[in-house]
Amino acid sequence: MPPAKRATATLPLRKTPQPKRVSPAVIDLGVLNEHLGYFVRRFQVAIFQDFIRRLSRIDISPAQFSVLVIIGANEGLSQSELGSTLGIERARLVRMLHLLDKRGLTERLPSSADGRRHALRLTRAGQTTLKQAKALAAQHEASLLPKLGPERYRQMLDALRAVS
Amino acid sequence: MPPAKRATATLPLRKTPQPKRVSPAVIDLGVLNEHLGYFVRRFQVAIFQDFIRRLSRIDISPAQFSVLVIIGANEGLSQSELGSTLGIERARLVRMLHLLDKRGLTERLPSSADGRRHALRLTRAGQTTLKQAKALAAQHEASLLPKLGPERYRQMLDALRAVS
Repeated sequence: MPPAKRATATLPLRKTPQPKRVSPAVIDLGVLNEHLGYFVRRFQVAIFQDFIRRLSRIDISPAQFSVLVIIGANEGLSQSELGSTLGIERARLVRMLHLLDKRGLTERLPSSADGRRHALRLTRAGQTTLKQAKALAAQHEASLLPKLGPERYRQMLDALRAVS
Repeated sequence: MPPAKRATATLPLRKTPQPKRVSPAVIDLGVLNEHLGYFVRRFQVAIFQDFIRRLSRIDISPAQFSVLVIIGANEGLSQSELGSTLGIERARLVRMLHLLDKRGLTERLPSSADGRRHALRLTRAGQTTLKQAKALAAQHEASLLPKLGPERYRQMLDALRAVS
């Protein structure tokens, strides 16, 4: 078989790669289609990427953002109050606060009520960072609204706030 | 000052430890209280723990469960179809399928349509494991219903399914 002919016969096949994006419309989700847990996970993972990306502009993680918000709204609260409010385990919270302290965003003052307890508060720099982070977080939230529509957004917020 | 008196003065303070569990009711969530993303994350993390725990009884992860369900409901689908349906990146999916193959739960057959493409399917053992996993997943889903109430459960499922 002459080379030219062989090339003609095989090239068309080689030139038709599998499409990178396959429409999921043809795939049956099976029982997953009835699992709220599955859709909550998919939704959370999808929106969390956007949130991480936005906050990364000021080198703040979502968990650090929550910590700064809670300290900012509750000056003088204790580490255990902060941890139980956000569901962050003690060892991880200690590391986070150490890092935020080192960056000069938070400080721990001895509490007047109990010498072993520390009262947490934001530094001036922490207040500035929190303000920037709030603006970025608000942009993220605003991006969810058109995805869900205002009615579904409100329904989900009410439902999840009620069960939290 | 006599030692007895000093002890009397300090002991009551030392005997009043901070409560380990602080009621979050007194803590202001600040802007987080208006962030759907915050509540979705908290809800997802909370329920995911239960899901992981239940599936761990048969040594299956949530991601492996999704993969088994999709293969079971779409015998002969390709790896790229599976990956794009579940949003799992290629390298991670390859590792997962390799592990499931090694455990004898899945197999990859050459597709008749395209020699480079593999058709995925469950083995007999894979079908048995999927059946067990579905029963555990159904128990997990059933545990969400009383948390949310049937109306909120249905609203959230409809809303998230619509945006997925």
